[in-house]
Amino acid sequence: MAQQERAIRTKLAIVTAAASVFDECGYERATIGEILARAGVTKGALYFHFPSKAALAEGVLSQQFSTVSVEPSASKLQELVDTGLTVAYRMRRDPLVSAVARLSLEQDVRAQFGTEAITQWIGASALLLEEAKKQGELLPHVVPSETAWLFSASWTGVQVYSQILAQREDLEARVVSLFGHLLPGIAVPAVLASLEITTARAMELGVRSEARGREALAGEPVAAG
Amino acid sequence: MAQQERAIRTKLAIVTAAASVFDECGYERATIGEILARAGVTKGALYFHFPSKAALAEGVLSQQFSTVSVEPSASKLQELVDTGLTVAYRMRRDPLVSAVARLSLEQDVRAQFGTEAITQWIGASALLLEEAKKQGELLPHVVPSETAWLFSASWTGVQVYSQILAQREDLEARVVSLFGHLLPGIAVPAVLASLEITTARAMELGVRSEARGREALAGEPVAAG
Repeated sequence: MAQQERAIRTKLAIVTAAASVFDECGYERATIGEILARAGVTKGALYFHFPSKAALAEGVLSQQFSTVSVEPSASKLQELVDTGLTVAYRMRRDPLVSAVARLSLEQDVRAQFGTEAITQWIGASALLLEEAKKQGELLPHVVPSETAWLFSASWTGVQVYSQILAQREDLEARVVSLFGHLLPGIAVPAVLASLEITTARAMELGVRSEARGREALAGEPVAAG
Repeated sequence: MAQQERAIRTKLAIVTAAASVFDECGYERATIGEILARAGVTKGALYFHFPSKAALAEGVLSQQFSTVSVEPSASKLQELVDTGLTVAYRMRRDPLVSAVARLSLEQDVRAQFGTEAITQWIGASALLLEEAKKQGELLPHVVPSETAWLFSASWTGVQVYSQILAQREDLEARVVSLFGHLLPGIAVPAVLASLEITTARAMELGVRSEARGREALAGEPVAAG
């Protein structure tokens, strides 16, 4: 049991170190040597868990949904907003989250690792929008799958611009602005008026999500809301 | 005169070849040898115009606004729509346009060439939105500079997703969808109803823009409308 726990901690240290190196240098320039140095583990331990640089990148990409989670809301549009705000908060602060963005968007790397992170993100948004539609939250013309694609793509563009132009310092504020621009075109007015879309909410949700993420990564049970 | 014309043609051949190599391989992997082979010019001619790979990238980036132009409209929101549609059409078909996107967005390259292409794109959008505001086309709460940032960022995200998921085959349709989602939040209803936002318009404007781009690149006078 102690041995199993140690293995989990070692694997987590390696994935975290790999994420920070991929996030800073990109896949091509990342070296196993630098990842080893940051993880503080032996070469044998690293290769036991991850036989190659590609396996390390896949390990980072597979963490995406275990590290970011959002609490359910009665309004599914609020839950979509909360997802966008939470990921914005986390992406500024957690290399494990921003490394997924970098690995998913880099042109050469995509060819190797596919587009799963992106299609999962669109799919999760589409599920929320379908539920929102069933509950009468959406204007009648809205097609959930189309809006999910557009929301994910726009969110990603906002993230890229914020990183390029402001080192992500304005990311939460820009995501708030994105929802302010997109939601009037899709939400029924009564729902639109009830949504909470603020940077204060991003921080509040982000802090709670960070705590859950730490617990999930450490393999411990996740406390309820 | 003939000699000057030949120099312009040679330079154009080099920039076009460089754009296609940067677009396919990215800046890091692009080689002068491959650019030479595609341009069909001598090494001496290439280095006379562009002393380094960095100079070639700057040559490509500087073409951005001479290759894409949009005809003025009475409605400045229509002109913003037309810009988004035209660039979508051109980006699918012209490596000179898509190479600018790739060079502007790649993380390692940005550090070297800066963010000028992006800030110019935001600035041009902000000018159109300020004029639209003066003309009463925008809802009272709209801040042109904020909406310009958001529009440019969202457009870029749509472009990146369309490239990743559909090799840009749905780019014009996704940009139409982007405007369909964004404009209800910023346009007064009477203007919104009058805007033409279709893939057919993207094609019509794109074909005219291509013709003007060819003339501009060839250094010949650009015919009116």
